[in-house]
Amino acid sequence: MAPRGNAMVGQSGGPTAVINQTLVGVVKAALAAKEIENVYGAIHGIRGILDGEFCDFSKQDPDNLELVADTPSAALLSVRLKPTKEICEKILARFQELNIRYFFYIGGNDTAETTHIINEMAKESGYDFRCIHCPKTIDNDLRVTDHTPGFGSAAKWVAQAFMGDNLDNRSLGGVKINIVMGRDAGWLTASSVLARVFPEDGPHFIYCPEVDFSIEGFLNDITECYQRLGRCVVAVSEGIHGPDDAPIIDLGEVDSHGNRQLSGSGALGDFLADQLKAHLKKLEPDTKHRIRADTFGYLQRCFPGVVSDVDAKEARAAGEAAVAAVLGDTVSGSIAFKRTGEGADYGVECFVTPLSTVAKETKDMPRDWLNQAGNDVVQEKVEPYIRPLAGNIAKIGQLDLTPIDI
Amino acid sequence: MAPRGNAMVGQSGGPTAVINQTLVGVVKAALAAKEIENVYGAIHGIRGILDGEFCDFSKQDPDNLELVADTPSAALLSVRLKPTKEICEKILARFQELNIRYFFYIGGNDTAETTHIINEMAKESGYDFRCIHCPKTIDNDLRVTDHTPGFGSAAKWVAQAFMGDNLDNRSLGGVKINIVMGRDAGWLTASSVLARVFPEDGPHFIYCPEVDFSIEGFLNDITECYQRLGRCVVAVSEGIHGPDDAPIIDLGEVDSHGNRQLSGSGALGDFLADQLKAHLKKLEPDTKHRIRADTFGYLQRCFPGVVSDVDAKEARAAGEAAVAAVLGDTVSGSIAFKRTGEGADYGVECFVTPLSTVAKETKDMPRDWLNQAGNDVVQEKVEPYIRPLAGNIAKIGQLDLTPIDI
Repeated sequence: MAPRGNAMVGQSGGPTAVINQTLVGVVKAALAAKEIENVYGAIHGIRGILDGEFCDFSKQDPDNLELVADTPSAALLSVRLKPTKEICEKILARFQELNIRYFFYIGGNDTAETTHIINEMAKESGYDFRCIHCPKTIDNDLRVTDHTPGFGSAAKWVAQAFMGDNLDNRSLGGVKINIVMGRDAGWLTASSVLARVFPEDGPHFIYCPEVDFSIEGFLNDITECYQRLGRCVVAVSEGIHGPDDAPIIDLGEVDSHGNRQLSGSGALGDFLADQLKAHLKKLEPDTKHRIRADTFGYLQRCFPGVVSDVDAKEARAAGEAAVAAVLGDTVSGSIAFKRTGEGADYGVECFVTPLSTVAKETKDMPRDWLNQAGNDVVQEKVEPYIRPLAGNIAKIGQLDLTPIDI
Repeated sequence: MAPRGNAMVGQSGGPTAVINQTLVGVVKAALAAKEIENVYGAIHGIRGILDGEFCDFSKQDPDNLELVADTPSAALLSVRLKPTKEICEKILARFQELNIRYFFYIGGNDTAETTHIINEMAKESGYDFRCIHCPKTIDNDLRVTDHTPGFGSAAKWVAQAFMGDNLDNRSLGGVKINIVMGRDAGWLTASSVLARVFPEDGPHFIYCPEVDFSIEGFLNDITECYQRLGRCVVAVSEGIHGPDDAPIIDLGEVDSHGNRQLSGSGALGDFLADQLKAHLKKLEPDTKHRIRADTFGYLQRCFPGVVSDVDAKEARAAGEAAVAAVLGDTVSGSIAFKRTGEGADYGVECFVTPLSTVAKETKDMPRDWLNQAGNDVVQEKVEPYIRPLAGNIAKIGQLDLTPIDI
């Protein structure tokens, strides 16, 4: 039977555009549950639990909660803190002290790991406690679930960014290299495929971390396309690497989970643009080439006004499902999506998967969703998977520019 | 009296999100005019006129034209080509050969200059010819006009980008430097001011090219804010420079109009982030700081789905006004906006200004729209000017995070 007591909810890791839909889904369902007395928010995730910084959701304006749900980035603020045994023991002690019987933690695989450790400790100590990890990540790299909340909105952003950038590049020519977020998995970079609307639209090449990157192959690919079309748009994952995970460039910074810094610098894009400039200079010493690189950076994950309607709805449903689960028979787990139909019949059902199946390791794209050469995705596989998640994408048109005789 | 003959329309320079509204405004009004026989589009601007590459707008699907109007980036494709005397003579000869009596050229100050030169030559040769420059530029740096079509949508994009990025930075802390487009004028960088919704919202500093940039001042500004709030969001124009226009960094590339390359590289942002890292390392050798830079790059000007409704409407009106002008008494000129009201009474009227008043030189922000220290705008002046142009900006909410005792 579901215990009587208080609930704590927190957010962790990199934010997304719909992470507050999940928060408000949890909060509204928890406020309505008779088993739950108070619903508290941990400010800056587990750091707020350690430091005693909380808000009380019964005191928040319900109308404002809906505006918060529509607002990108963790409204409770976030944290990146490696959960040592000592930290988790302190958290559990604090939970017991505050009679927290329900814990909802919204985040990625590192967050699932934190939830898993706290859950194992609670079990060992015999504390009657239920906890659920609610998935979020623009990287879409969590195991078990069909996809993660936050990914659809980021995919929509990346798709529209490439649509606009392809139009821009088409109007002025040259080569444009765009660096897309994604440490280990190419899901978000692959979303650029949705930008292909008309024949010859870019991105003309897509490089994901699932395939070892070769600078020679890259230079040859781009040069061939540029010489043929007078232009080329390229999608490159920030996570690309050579054989044996050799970094293409190294920014030298590492976070508390041992992850190397990739974002927040234009260095990879500039490096690739410089390599291409030098390559073209050797081929055609007297021609001036317009080679540009943009690094999409943090804009991809929290852009107000560019949110997938499908993603927002599903993120809310994930939060509601978390509360429904703990009020039922579920003691712990992570919310996951099962896809119930494709195309026009697209839909998802929520289910609960054990925390251990989501924590720590991530999920790459299947190798056969990328082409043999490793310079593009297999569009027939990737597009039907991603398109329904990105929801309402902007529509674009073009003139018939077949030259006429006058 | 307006001559009878054909019309030619073209697009030039960097594209905007609403440049095709102006195009379709010109095209529909020209197709309806009894004085105008055929309406041709020059593919890649004056390059298409030189090479004989045209489309015929009577052959384009009228429904598709409306979709094209809503699509960012030059639908006729664009060009950057310095108009030498020889080139302009060839263009005028081509116009006479094709009985082009009306020329509409959509672009910035360089485009106005090209239009001006062709117009002067036509006058000298006694050819009965009318030509209008239709303004566009995200930089908002054209003289005479209150503002330029394309700026409002870019301002909306920049405002929303900073809203999201401020939320992101607030959730995880650290310093975030964002580089915004704008060669000589800080208008677009100043638009980041619209992102300040709640107290302590960033951007906490705004650096525009109108004031000489000092790296020492920059480091001291950021450090003070970062030590006080634990975070800092900074807007920096790509056009910042030291005394006597000394570049902060030099990418070494120059275009046909003598403009130095600024965009399409993350180098300036990375340089400033590295300087700040080194500065903080000296102050606090043992503390790890999260310092990140993003360069917004080309995404600012052509992002489908992030378009100001006001900007789109005005861009269309500018195209329509161009045709109305030449069918009336106007032989040549540039379309400009006069603001007819502020705030809720905001509106514009179109008028025609001589080409020479718009060509070549650009317009900076007034010095007194920037604060004395040169590290922010004067919000009371800048915000009422820009807010109506940016139109429908996304709304965001936040929780009350005043910690409670439990």
